[in-house]
Amino acid sequence: MKEKISLRERVHEVIFEADTPSGKLFDVVLFWLIIISVLAVILESVKAYDRQFHLFFKYTEWIVTVVFTIEYFLRIYSIKKPVKYIFSFYGIIDLLSILPAYLSLIFSGTHTLAIIRVLRLFRIFRVFKITRYLSEGSYLKKALMDSRRKIFIFVVGVGLLVIVLGAVMYLIEGGQDSGFVNIPVSIYWAIVTLTTVGYGDISPTTPLGQFVASVIMLIGYGIIAVPTGIVTAELAKHGTLNTNTQSCSNCNFSDHADDAKFCKRCGESLNL
Amino acid sequence: MKEKISLRERVHEVIFEADTPSGKLFDVVLFWLIIISVLAVILESVKAYDRQFHLFFKYTEWIVTVVFTIEYFLRIYSIKKPVKYIFSFYGIIDLLSILPAYLSLIFSGTHTLAIIRVLRLFRIFRVFKITRYLSEGSYLKKALMDSRRKIFIFVVGVGLLVIVLGAVMYLIEGGQDSGFVNIPVSIYWAIVTLTTVGYGDISPTTPLGQFVASVIMLIGYGIIAVPTGIVTAELAKHGTLNTNTQSCSNCNFSDHADDAKFCKRCGESLNL
Amino acid sequence: MKEKISLRERVHEVIFEADTPSGKLFDVVLFWLIIISVLAVILESVKAYDRQFHLFFKYTEWIVTVVFTIEYFLRIYSIKKPVKYIFSFYGIIDLLSILPAYLSLIFSGTHTLAIIRVLRLFRIFRVFKITRYLSEGSYLKKALMDSRRKIFIFVVGVGLLVIVLGAVMYLIEGGQDSGFVNIPVSIYWAIVTLTTVGYGDISPTTPLGQFVASVIMLIGYGIIAVPTGIVTAELAKHGTLNTNTQSCSNCNFSDHADDAKFCKRCGESLNL
Amino acid sequence: MKEKISLRERVHEVIFEADTPSGKLFDVVLFWLIIISVLAVILESVKAYDRQFHLFFKYTEWIVTVVFTIEYFLRIYSIKKPVKYIFSFYGIIDLLSILPAYLSLIFSGTHTLAIIRVLRLFRIFRVFKITRYLSEGSYLKKALMDSRRKIFIFVVGVGLLVIVLGAVMYLIEGGQDSGFVNIPVSIYWAIVTLTTVGYGDISPTTPLGQFVASVIMLIGYGIIAVPTGIVTAELAKHGTLNTNTQSCSNCNFSDHADDAKFCKRCGESLNL
Repeated sequence: MKEKISLRERVHEVIFEADTPSGKLFDVVLFWLIIISVLAVILESVKAYDRQFHLFFKYTEWIVTVVFTIEYFLRIYSIKKPVKYIFSFYGIIDLLSILPAYLSLIFSGTHTLAIIRVLRLFRIFRVFKITRYLSEGSYLKKALMDSRRKIFIFVVGVGLLVIVLGAVMYLIEGGQDSGFVNIPVSIYWAIVTLTTVGYGDISPTTPLGQFVASVIMLIGYGIIAVPTGIVTAELAKHGTLNTNTQSCSNCNFSDHADDAKFCKRCGESLNL
Repeated sequence: MKEKISLRERVHEVIFEADTPSGKLFDVVLFWLIIISVLAVILESVKAYDRQFHLFFKYTEWIVTVVFTIEYFLRIYSIKKPVKYIFSFYGIIDLLSILPAYLSLIFSGTHTLAIIRVLRLFRIFRVFKITRYLSEGSYLKKALMDSRRKIFIFVVGVGLLVIVLGAVMYLIEGGQDSGFVNIPVSIYWAIVTLTTVGYGDISPTTPLGQFVASVIMLIGYGIIAVPTGIVTAELAKHGTLNTNTQSCSNCNFSDHADDAKFCKRCGESLNL
Repeated sequence: MKEKISLRERVHEVIFEADTPSGKLFDVVLFWLIIISVLAVILESVKAYDRQFHLFFKYTEWIVTVVFTIEYFLRIYSIKKPVKYIFSFYGIIDLLSILPAYLSLIFSGTHTLAIIRVLRLFRIFRVFKITRYLSEGSYLKKALMDSRRKIFIFVVGVGLLVIVLGAVMYLIEGGQDSGFVNIPVSIYWAIVTLTTVGYGDISPTTPLGQFVASVIMLIGYGIIAVPTGIVTAELAKHGTLNTNTQSCSNCNFSDHADDAKFCKRCGESLNL
Repeated sequence: MKEKISLRERVHEVIFEADTPSGKLFDVVLFWLIIISVLAVILESVKAYDRQFHLFFKYTEWIVTVVFTIEYFLRIYSIKKPVKYIFSFYGIIDLLSILPAYLSLIFSGTHTLAIIRVLRLFRIFRVFKITRYLSEGSYLKKALMDSRRKIFIFVVGVGLLVIVLGAVMYLIEGGQDSGFVNIPVSIYWAIVTLTTVGYGDISPTTPLGQFVASVIMLIGYGIIAVPTGIVTAELAKHGTLNTNTQSCSNCNFSDHADDAKFCKRCGESLNL
């Protein structure tokens, strides 16, 4: 008894799923289209290439944009809750992938923004049967999500710190023609220093400025421990808690290792 | 039976608490005053803006300072232990927020220090109902406090190390016109290198100097593990203790390990 | 009854093992040959030395290459599964150690690549009775292997991020003659910034560019926590498993948790 | 009954111990002598100060050196095992603290090396009743000692890596006048890049060189996780194992928290 599948359902299967041959083919084509169009945007920015292949880059750009536009509307057409898709993370990325090209008809230069379509690759990865990779990815995402509040407080704290440190350095080095021309630039310098990036485009020249800079560096060197500690503690917790969901039928103890066959508390055999 | 509330108590409620409408309003106004006055100080330092809006910045500064001064004295007036407040962390910040403006009447330029009032934001955060954030923050603070002795020893060790390394580099590179003009500057360079900031304003030019610099870099790259390890181990320890929500029915003690069957304080059996 | 050992077996014993006097001698000679030839390649690149000792460097190079070539074929001759050796990690290193010298007969300059033979030292280390070091090394390798999927996802994520960030900075700073001449260079700059290396050969000069750069630095400062967290959690897991030395008297399984009372493999009670 | 104490024993008490008033006084005097002499060496290197206070610096130097020399011989005289002291860590530091001044009579400039006496501060710290700090310090030292083999392997691996990477970059950038003048300098650059220091005194200018540099940066950004992971895992292990040594008299369970009064396994009261 053959079930009838509507056109909408078939489109959905091809576009959103990857377990039918046509769905897989669609994803592979999409993957290469993204790679090609991103490469085109990158290489177009190199003057030597742009002079030689200008038309080729332009055609590639527009062909990809048209294909992505059709795909975008097919996605909206075929999905049951189009509004939810449109405002989802991937829905926004999909829209941002096509907008820059159209905007470039009005404002020149904006088509470079089309490079954001490189983020679409995240969704396409599943074609390559890397579900294990995806589960690892969602594991990382969960650990980051769970520690987002601690990280937010840390970032706010660092933000307030660099404002104060930037103003202090502006007072110390301000009149010395050493690059600390105003407080925003000094704050920029404080961030460059605290994160241990250290370009050297601006650097203190007075003894007092160098002393304060040293203190900022040591602070930055020390507090990098904080986000690391947060994420590590979170990952370590998940690593221990998530690995096993077995529960002993006798004593109900549930903190078993992955290779446990018997309850380590009462010796009861575990259902594997 | 209506309880009579003295003026002092009412002022206290408005200024120190945030659970009445007027208390909340007070905090919101304070929050925006701080933001505006900090922005004024930052933008005033940019010459282009200062030329155009000089008077506006000056008036903003003085209005905010007068409001903060009144608030500071109201805080002292309304609190039961004014001395304890004055010498508390927030009391000092509150005072430092108003002093620079008055000092600028005597010494020019000091009003830039008023930027320290950005630290007042820490207290105002509670308005936005982020108590969960605050508890996470105090969790971070506790972990940092508990490991402060280890971090202090680490900082002292690093301090002695950079003094020796700076002197060694001064001996090696000193006469080469390569920026290592004296030991304080060489110590500054050693800190820049050890913390992996690496401005490049001073860098070794002799083969021996580059060799020693390489060793310093590898040391710095290695010992960054130490503060990270300290904070992480501390966070992981706390992280474990906090997960359990059991509470002893006898003595109400609640800081139990996950696999505890009996209260570790009074020996009462725990309901699992 | 003396067992007859074929020439092939004796060669194998000398070349591949280090528990006979001749095998040990072979490894020590090989160790010094590698050190000498690597030093020759390094010092030859310094013009002052090359002018003085050119012939000496050339002879050293060719003597070592001939010895290594003979050794390479003796390894293939004496081993039972030559194909497996040829395509193993060390087999490829051994081949790459001799190829550059022969290639330099055709293409000048390639003999510098012979420096890759420094990697052969990894195998020679066992001569110095540092088996404990090797077991620690394999412990590190295992932890890195177990977390390779997480690290791969992290690297892919960082890769996509720097592409987008590089393009954004190219748009912001592109026309300012500040070094962001095209997107590939901007991506290079984004990597330099995100990894907190910060050469300063290219650095933003516009306020907006400095703001975006600050955001990139803070991201880089924050996400360095991720690989650290991954490796630490993995090492901590292994570290925990190794601390317990209990062994089941029934099934001899020995990888028990610290608080285990019964063998998790067979249910036998453990002697605590 | 008064015990007779020999002069040697009394000298030992004053010099090596800090629990008698005279012993404490000795340590405090020593502490300030070290601080003063180190400051003298540092400030003498600053030309402006040296011109003004040259004689003062010279006298300070020699007075401190003579006092330290007397102290060094008193230590040797009063201790029971002088040879063991002489070759101990502190014995070597004590000797190195006085040698540079005497050497400066023969070779000029060496007296700057006297700055190494700043390391003597480590021993003097105990005066300030910071035994808790010292126990924390020895805890850190133990964790570093236990992971020294892993760290050694890591450093050797990084060392071989930078040699290969330096040679590769020399081949790519060598002829471009971009600073990669020879392999030693390229290895120096590779270390500067891998450790994320990034001076910028040498930086790649060819597209291929920038690509390889990007790869090196990402490797450096990733493998910093390894030493961090090693130290953290070690600290976490000690942190858990060392905290408490109580053992239940009833069930012999010994993994108790520091504030436990009753066994969490069987409810037995613990001997505190």
